[in-house]
Parts: sequence; C-alpha cells; structure tokens
Amino acid sequence: MRIEELGEFGLIELLRAGRLPRGEGVRLGAGDDAALLEGTDGTLLALTTDMLVEGIHFDLSFTDRASLGYKALAVNLSDIAAMGGGGSSWAVVSLGLPPGTEVGEVEELYRGMSEAAWEYGCSLVGGDTVRSPRGLVLNLAVVGKVREGDLLPRSGARPGDLLMVTGEVGASALGLAALLAGKGREDIFLQYVKRHLRPRPRLDISAGLRARGAAAAIDISDGVLRDLGHICEESGVGAELRYGDLPLPPGAERAAADLGADLAGLVLGGGEDYELLLAVSPERAGELQATGTAVAVGRFTEGESVTVLDSTGREMKVPSPGWEHFKEAG
Amino acid sequence: MRIEELGEFGLIELLRAGRLPRGEGVRLGAGDDAALLEGTDGTLLALTTDMLVEGIHFDLSFTDRASLGYKALAVNLSDIAAMGGGGSSWAVVSLGLPPGTEVGEVEELYRGMSEAAWEYGCSLVGGDTVRSPRGLVLNLAVVGKVREGDLLPRSGARPGDLLMVTGEVGASALGLAALLAGKGREDIFLQYVKRHLRPRPRLDISAGLRARGAAAAIDISDGVLRDLGHICEESGVGAELRYGDLPLPPGAERAAADLGADLAGLVLGGGEDYELLLAVSPERAGELQATGTAVAVGRFTEGESVTVLDSTGREMKVPSPGWEHFKEAG
Repeated sequence: MRIEELGEFGLIELLRAGRLPRGEGVRLGAGDDAALLEGTDGTLLALTTDMLVEGIHFDLSFTDRASLGYKALAVNLSDIAAMGGGGSSWAVVSLGLPPGTEVGEVEELYRGMSEAAWEYGCSLVGGDTVRSPRGLVLNLAVVGKVREGDLLPRSGARPGDLLMVTGEVGASALGLAALLAGKGREDIFLQYVKRHLRPRPRLDISAGLRARGAAAAIDISDGVLRDLGHICEESGVGAELRYGDLPLPPGAERAAADLGADLAGLVLGGGEDYELLLAVSPERAGELQATGTAVAVGRFTEGESVTVLDSTGREMKVPSPGWEHFKEAG
Repeated sequence: MRIEELGEFGLIELLRAGRLPRGEGVRLGAGDDAALLEGTDGTLLALTTDMLVEGIHFDLSFTDRASLGYKALAVNLSDIAAMGGGGSSWAVVSLGLPPGTEVGEVEELYRGMSEAAWEYGCSLVGGDTVRSPRGLVLNLAVVGKVREGDLLPRSGARPGDLLMVTGEVGASALGLAALLAGKGREDIFLQYVKRHLRPRPRLDISAGLRARGAAAAIDISDGVLRDLGHICEESGVGAELRYGDLPLPPGAERAAADLGADLAGLVLGGGEDYELLLAVSPERAGELQATGTAVAVGRFTEGESVTVLDSTGREMKVPSPGWEHFKEAG
C-alpha cells in the first residue's frame, strides 16, 4: 500500500501498533503534541520535532525567510504549549540547503528563528547543516519543560467538559487564501497574512491552564475539526461544537467574501492558528471566560462523534477536514 | 556569497559569531558533538540532531532501508558517546517521504531504527511524517545523558596529551569505495560494507573514559584528519599523528589495492567509522592501551598545526581532508 492511501494518521497508528522501542523514563510516547520524559523535582521534559519542506509546507514566493525561520520555531514551541509547558526551552536546527543558497538567505532564516527564540525564551544550541539536491528543508527539535501539575494531555477530556478555545480561529487560513489569490499585500488582508506567517505559540498562558480547570489541550495546527477529533479519539469521547460561538478575527466575513472563499471551511478546516483547544470542567469555565483567557464553543459528550451546530442549533454540513500530509483534500 | 564558497564549517563559525539566542540552562551550545543542558543530580542532558538527505548522504541502490534507519539513529547516538554520555536516551524521528513511498518501506526504516534503539537503550518517542516532493529525508534528534564526571568536550586537549583512538579506522570508507565500485557483495568487502551501513556508536565505553584519563573526545564522522582538526581548534593545540600506528581493519591493504584506492586517503579522509578520537593524559594512557580500549596514535602539541608522520617518522603528504557538506572534494 502506498503512503498516500494510508495517510499520515494511519501511519502514526501503524507505528504505535508496531510498538516502538520504549525504555525507561518515558511518560508519554508518540501520539500527543510532544513526548514527555520523566524529569526530577516534578518537572517533565517535553520533546517535539517538526519538518518543513519547500513546496509542501511553504512557498518562498509567499514568505520571506525570516518569517519562515520564525514560524518553524513557533510551531514547535506551540507543541510545548499544548502539553501545558512553559519557561525555558532549547532547540536544535537542521537545515537542508539547495545548491546556490546565499549565505545572506541562511542568515535571514536564523534572524527570524532568533527573533522567536528571544521572544519565547528558547536557546538555539546547535544543529546540522547539509546540502539538499532541490528545495529547502528545515527541521527543528525542541526540548521544553512541563511541570507535573500543569500537564495537559490530549487524553484528558471527559463527557460534560466544556470545549473552549484560547483565541481567534481562521485568521491563518484567510491569510493563506489571500496569499494564494495574490492579494497578500492588500490592506484588509495584512492582519491575516501576518497571523499565517508569524503565528504565536500560546506559551503566555499554557502553563497556568490546568490550575484554572483545563484537563486536556491540543494546539490548532491541522484545523479545528481535525484537532478536536484528535482530542476525542485520545480521550474516548465525542464533541459538539457551536460554530457561531467560535471567535473569528475582525472582518473575517468580508475578507472571505472578497476572496470568494467559504468562511466556515477556512475556520473549521484551515488550521495553523496555533490557539489551544481545551477541555475544561464546567465549574471552572466561568473564570477562564471572564478573564478572556478562553471562550466556550461547545462541549464534550459520550460517544465518539463530532458534530457542528449552526447558530440556530441545527447540525451543520461539515466541510472536508483540514490538512493531512499525505492525502489530497477530499 | 554562496554557501558552497563558505562551506559548512564557515557557516557554523558565522552562526556562532552571530551569537545565537542562549538563555538559562545551557552548559554548551553549538560547536561540539552535542549541546549540553544543565540537569540535576550531576547529570547533564545532551541534545543532538542529524539530517540525512537522499542523493547527498545515502543512495538507496547501496543501502537497504533497514540499514539506513539503523545508521540514522546510530550516528546521533555516536554524538552522545563523543560527549562521554551513556545510559538511556530518547529520540524523535522526522521523515520526509517522496510520492509513491510504500508503507512497507517506511516499516523497514523503522525496523532498522528500532533495532539500533533496542541495542543502545534508546526510546523512539515520536516525530513528524511529511511529504517530500522528491527524495527521502530523515532527521533524528536525540536527548541523552552525560554525567558531570564523564564529560568529554572537544576543548579538553592539552599539549603533551596522547592522541588515542578506540578502534579501527578506514573500514567504512573501504566499504563505501567497494559499493561505489559495484563490489559491495564480494566476500572480501562484506565486513567493510557492514561497517559502512551499520556503524556502532561507542556507547559501550564512552561513559567511563574520563575516569580512565581521557580529557577530550570527538567521534570520527568527517574523517580522522578533519575530526582531529576540530579537537585542535577547540582546544587551541596542535597534533602529531603517526599514520603507521592507526589500527586498520584486517585485509585493508589488499582491499584498497583491489579497488585501486589510496589506502591512506581512505583512512585519513574517509570518515564515518564512529570510533572516538581521544586526548589522554600520558600517565593514564597505559591502562587504556593495556585493556585494548584505545590505542595511542600520536600526541597533542603546542601550536595549531596538525602533522602526519609515516612509519619512518617523516612528515607525510596529507591527502585532501574528509567530508564537508558544501564544498566539493579538493
């Protein structure tokens, strides 16, 4: 069978079923946002990695190299945030550089990475720089810290928990759609393009969420629906999402109309917003909502189905789910 | 300036000079075999990463995928060994898979990686699997442990220290030369080919070397001469290498002759043997030598030049140095 038929998530399942080598010191292996290694003094180490390939994950006609470097680190840091992590982190950078790469281009990549690193307290401690026959390849691996009492696994949701989100969704997808339509420089799209090119990992709030009632988290990378699906699978629950309660960025409807795009499709399927989806115990949700830290957008249920309700409470026809690395959009 | 003109090591210097972001908890950043993070209880964490790109680092007509997976993990573990590390380790795996990849091929990669992982006590705890437009890309990142008292930085060599090596050199280069000559399946080359395809990181001895008199180490990946050069640069010393004392694999002369290859060139420049080069205080070298753990092959000197002596004590003309990722062989 070809990898395109199985898909990325099929492959992850296969590898988990194949029982990857797992020795001492592993709290959590493959299948969450980051792996967790046993630490000392109640602190776990979170380990995560992401590969970005030119022509698949980015197009250098749509992003400057500094933003690419920034984003490459930010998405890894977002995985640490999605575990409930925070504080210092450490990264190693692998670059596969195509022939003819200018030194200045590599400096630009590092300039953006360094910007994100300073911003989020990450040290760049080394890496590997090699040739690539065609196209730029970036791989970052990050070690972060998660205090035992802050841990937010994907598997922590229970029926009755509220579904909450820490910020606006859909901005990144609108930005990408604007870039693809050649409108990335138009004023009304600039805010979305920026969110697409320089996403913000939610390390500013992640480490405190469990103490405030959250029990599970995932970062929105593949798309709201797909990422919600991951929480449901790992927790063995279903969910009901109220589309009308999702916080959208200002001007989203007009921007989508201008692009001739289906706003609900972008919001539910687009991904790359890097806000956190949370499962929160209903008694505690009020506090997160009152402080503006997160907004309730649904609830977790018995069963395993994910349904989306429109503003009248009727079930919506759901657009095709978000980004998967091997399958084409359905 | 293009990256080919600057070269990999020029790039590393440039990035170090550019002062990469470095916050708390970093004992050692870019420039050694692995980065070192402050741990607790006298244990440091070593963090390392390596990217392998099809067409640059491997050719699937010369290696089976299981061996490729094995080697990809082994070379990272060798970086941990070169710091004096040992014990448990943890790895994340990024795969960039070209269109048409068969699921069985990915399973083969993981089978080899798992073999190395079980053998060396490494847990495979997650990763990222993405599409690559052309050619296979593997990136591994490994976290290992180094006890404070075992630490072997590149910078630890002093004039007067003996230069020692923990095993045979040249086998991997002979194996690669045999593969390139289409002779990889001939009986006399099999031992070398195996050493090339499935190198052994020296985690079996690495953690005890400092207690036995070693003060600096590097693993032989780029080639004896080049790796010796790295120790000299970081330590601010020179070195004198006695070519005739280097332990060669059995039958090396005949094999090189059969291939029409310059044996000294392969031995000094070939690399990928993953034995350790050590700086050892002269009073302690006898013990390492007597137990067969390492063999004295020269000494460190004042100054900064690296010279190679033949068996008569005369300076040898040195073949062009080993593998560098961006520059063509001189």
